[in-house]
Amino acid sequence: MSVDYHKILQEIEEAILPLKGDGEIATYIPELANVDPDKYGLCLHCFDDQHYVLGDWNENFSIQSISKVFTTAMAFTLIGKEIWKRVDVEPSGDSFNSLVLLENEKGIPRNPLINSGAIVVADILVSILDNPKNDFLAFVRKITDNPTVDFNPKVAASEAAAGFRNAALANLIKSFGNLENDVERVLDFYFHQCSLEMSCYDLSKAFLLFANHGVLPHSGEQMLTKSLTKRVNAIMQTCGFYDEAGEFSFRVGLPGKSGVGGGIVAIYPQEYSVAVWSPRLNPKGNSTLAMKSLELLTTKTGFSIF
Amino acid sequence: MSVDYHKILQEIEEAILPLKGDGEIATYIPELANVDPDKYGLCLHCFDDQHYVLGDWNENFSIQSISKVFTTAMAFTLIGKEIWKRVDVEPSGDSFNSLVLLENEKGIPRNPLINSGAIVVADILVSILDNPKNDFLAFVRKITDNPTVDFNPKVAASEAAAGFRNAALANLIKSFGNLENDVERVLDFYFHQCSLEMSCYDLSKAFLLFANHGVLPHSGEQMLTKSLTKRVNAIMQTCGFYDEAGEFSFRVGLPGKSGVGGGIVAIYPQEYSVAVWSPRLNPKGNSTLAMKSLELLTTKTGFSIF
Amino acid sequence: MSVDYHKILQEIEEAILPLKGDGEIATYIPELANVDPDKYGLCLHCFDDQHYVLGDWNENFSIQSISKVFTTAMAFTLIGKEIWKRVDVEPSGDSFNSLVLLENEKGIPRNPLINSGAIVVADILVSILDNPKNDFLAFVRKITDNPTVDFNPKVAASEAAAGFRNAALANLIKSFGNLENDVERVLDFYFHQCSLEMSCYDLSKAFLLFANHGVLPHSGEQMLTKSLTKRVNAIMQTCGFYDEAGEFSFRVGLPGKSGVGGGIVAIYPQEYSVAVWSPRLNPKGNSTLAMKSLELLTTKTGFSIF
Amino acid sequence: MSVDYHKILQEIEEAILPLKGDGEIATYIPELANVDPDKYGLCLHCFDDQHYVLGDWNENFSIQSISKVFTTAMAFTLIGKEIWKRVDVEPSGDSFNSLVLLENEKGIPRNPLINSGAIVVADILVSILDNPKNDFLAFVRKITDNPTVDFNPKVAASEAAAGFRNAALANLIKSFGNLENDVERVLDFYFHQCSLEMSCYDLSKAFLLFANHGVLPHSGEQMLTKSLTKRVNAIMQTCGFYDEAGEFSFRVGLPGKSGVGGGIVAIYPQEYSVAVWSPRLNPKGNSTLAMKSLELLTTKTGFSIF
Repeated sequence: MSVDYHKILQEIEEAILPLKGDGEIATYIPELANVDPDKYGLCLHCFDDQHYVLGDWNENFSIQSISKVFTTAMAFTLIGKEIWKRVDVEPSGDSFNSLVLLENEKGIPRNPLINSGAIVVADILVSILDNPKNDFLAFVRKITDNPTVDFNPKVAASEAAAGFRNAALANLIKSFGNLENDVERVLDFYFHQCSLEMSCYDLSKAFLLFANHGVLPHSGEQMLTKSLTKRVNAIMQTCGFYDEAGEFSFRVGLPGKSGVGGGIVAIYPQEYSVAVWSPRLNPKGNSTLAMKSLELLTTKTGFSIF
Repeated sequence: MSVDYHKILQEIEEAILPLKGDGEIATYIPELANVDPDKYGLCLHCFDDQHYVLGDWNENFSIQSISKVFTTAMAFTLIGKEIWKRVDVEPSGDSFNSLVLLENEKGIPRNPLINSGAIVVADILVSILDNPKNDFLAFVRKITDNPTVDFNPKVAASEAAAGFRNAALANLIKSFGNLENDVERVLDFYFHQCSLEMSCYDLSKAFLLFANHGVLPHSGEQMLTKSLTKRVNAIMQTCGFYDEAGEFSFRVGLPGKSGVGGGIVAIYPQEYSVAVWSPRLNPKGNSTLAMKSLELLTTKTGFSIF
Repeated sequence: MSVDYHKILQEIEEAILPLKGDGEIATYIPELANVDPDKYGLCLHCFDDQHYVLGDWNENFSIQSISKVFTTAMAFTLIGKEIWKRVDVEPSGDSFNSLVLLENEKGIPRNPLINSGAIVVADILVSILDNPKNDFLAFVRKITDNPTVDFNPKVAASEAAAGFRNAALANLIKSFGNLENDVERVLDFYFHQCSLEMSCYDLSKAFLLFANHGVLPHSGEQMLTKSLTKRVNAIMQTCGFYDEAGEFSFRVGLPGKSGVGGGIVAIYPQEYSVAVWSPRLNPKGNSTLAMKSLELLTTKTGFSIF
Repeated sequence: MSVDYHKILQEIEEAILPLKGDGEIATYIPELANVDPDKYGLCLHCFDDQHYVLGDWNENFSIQSISKVFTTAMAFTLIGKEIWKRVDVEPSGDSFNSLVLLENEKGIPRNPLINSGAIVVADILVSILDNPKNDFLAFVRKITDNPTVDFNPKVAASEAAAGFRNAALANLIKSFGNLENDVERVLDFYFHQCSLEMSCYDLSKAFLLFANHGVLPHSGEQMLTKSLTKRVNAIMQTCGFYDEAGEFSFRVGLPGKSGVGGGIVAIYPQEYSVAVWSPRLNPKGNSTLAMKSLELLTTKTGFSIF
């Protein structure tokens, strides 16, 4: 498939101009509220390390829930199918619904990409890893091929200070016996993973792994099995966008994951990985401009997984 | 991609042998309970009309909810994006959840592939078509290229007689103002569409349309636009399997749709369409052997959309 | 207890003056929307047939859900404790919640004073009575000692035409096997019972029965056993005011029942029965002025059941 | 009313004999699981300090949720109607439902006698009192007229160690802004209040207050206003028995409160207060024998509030 990505990105940049200013930045985590809401960056990575960029593509931002894909992949690597005894793979609907379902299903979260599921995955990593935070950081640095990727301790602290809802989820899960470690310890790990800062360049590079059957393009190393990679992609497809998974699938048609920091990353298997960042969110918590950019990308390139 | 489908189908037939007898047939519709539970058929269709078959591939069965893909495609063709003012595209969780969400969202069903959504789509068709049942039948016969496809009036009557839950849904939707026609008229159409009988051969042939960017392979006619086809596939991917959409995506990785008659149809875009039929269902209402057969198919062929 | 009811009613009339105009009349049943929203009537009945009145106390209005107390008492009389196999006695929260609970509890409504429960009670009466509507009317006329009490066929027809939500409930109950008769037949009875028209005088007279251990004061006849009467009162106390049962118990402290026609009736056992009518409703569907009048009544008389 | 309580208690003792052994003791708090499940005590207190007893009436047990009536009364005394800005007065249904409603109603618990509501009341006391635990203990000792009433620190510690569900509730409430103090501090108070140990004698004596318009019979002191007392009784009536409030109202017909330690206390205004203790619980969490004993008591004495 021969596509002029450069030209398509120009067209996207023009097309989204009228939408700048749509949406609101997340404010429930005080540190996130300090971000310039009008930032916009995009980076599309192909396998030959060719990449195409727009705007603030090289600026770090808080990846937030996108980190859940990394912890899920790492836990899946470490314990394999055992992970599915602790968390399911079904879409969850909205946040309220997810609390109800947690109760209905006796502490088994609906999937690893919502908060409750990510807390269980965090618990798995805290149980297995010697130095959970360091070991996880090393994993992310390796797949990103960037040793400077790091947590933002101020953001982590800010999340902890405002994290009563996550503490409620963790305690509810613990009451059902699906949390092995202390609530505080698990949440400390979880708040740190959410505070990871990466640029669009870093993110799109890291996600090439999922577009490439589990092989790191820069080293050729098979980090995840092909089967595991396929499954992580399937979960992103059905569960990656809170209560807009269907909408994203419908409009964009690629597996992906969003975060309240305004980032969205998506992959087109065997072809590219793309990360977009724009802090203003739509009412369902996904970046307005990033959603639109990706919709335009798949429309203009003419290929989606469907 | 050069794949020996013939050999793979043999392997599937062997592999599922030990699972025969797993699951229970649907009994809530008396007519469905009369089916031989040990039937098993499979038909995989490629674009050159090459097809590969197993067992009872040429025997008619009740396609039930698979018909929802046909009505959705037909309504989408007739009124375009207007359809999304009446029904959403998000996954729904289980049947109970779907009732709750219907209430929460003021009569807008979560997606067109669950009962409530299909009832709204039926209402759309009843409003627009001159002879709703006949016109719909003509549409299905055309894409199937089989003029003998028909409703089973005994099954339709049996569904009506046991259809109190669907009558509850239709009345609840009507109470929110999202049903234009009489409840009885809409349900009559709905019970007939569910009673459609097709073979695995028919079904896989009809679904080639969705694997082929909306073009009928046998005639070359563009029935649906490429964009519309992509969107129907995305909805099948996230909403096609009741509360097992994630599981199916995870294990099989193809867009598809199941019915309580024991049929499942799935597509691999640009390559094939496949229908499997086996009446015994797992606890979530999807055919046990059909699910397994499709999982084996994508594992053995080595390709999924992810 | 020697209380100057005459004086207390004057004080109530003055005290509620500033609240006139608060609230909105029910409009979902077209016929009810035609009522003068500023009507206000009150009648307090003691056992010696002494009664005290205010305003439009002698004007007929649509008693709506208050009729559920009559059908419950009648069904209880006819089949005794068997009724509790079909309907529970627990409070239900709001209308949405009641739909959820109906599902959770497999078609057993939470109590006989919400719509779903009253539909089951209607089904019981339709099964047992030779001429359900006539026999029920005779029962009400007898306890009211007024042979002119009657249904309003226009209101009944109006309810039927707008009764999709009740049809949804009836079908859902039928799908769980908790409805013996045809949905249409049960709803016809139900819509008629709701259309009963009575004055505050009639209503307070009829409810003396419940204040008097089941004995009709005007004839001395024991219509209900003492035990049954106590139980009906207990149900009114916990379930008589939709999602404001606690609030009514808290502010008024008497067993009672309200209807969307704006009527509320309450009893003080062994002492009096009181009916108030004012069509403007608060957001939870109970008459604003009637609630306030009864709160003032128990505050000023100084006696409540607590 | 001249009633031979002595004789009635004998009859109750005989009548419940065949039911001994029915139900299971609560085991989720390890310390509670150590209680002899076959204990049974009853004490009925009249105003003249006359009291009638059965079995283990003078033995201390863990009053658990019965303590919520004391904290509600104390908070009501301290801040008056302001309490109703923080907690509602409506019945809640089961525990699951109560979590859902907490979410639906933005952190305002349904009533002060369920866990979430009692946690908010605990928060109010922690904010106002200088030494919350000591001051609350002093309040209970005063109304009980027994300076030896005390917390059981082992039970409090056991509740804390198993208190993940309560921690979930407290954090969820905090996330909605309806908790002023640290979650840990509020829960420490809450777990202590639940660990209070009293005998049937103590409990029935303490509750005379609520049967006596707020006046302590032993000292004549007006502890609560008459109006406040009436309102606390109304809340007990509609909310005192988890998801069996209607059943208790229906069978017993008195305001009361139960605890998972197996205690139930109820009052007949102006006449008596009665406490029963038997650790075996029915599936809804209320003491089987205590429920039955109170049903027999109101049947045999012939008077209930209805």
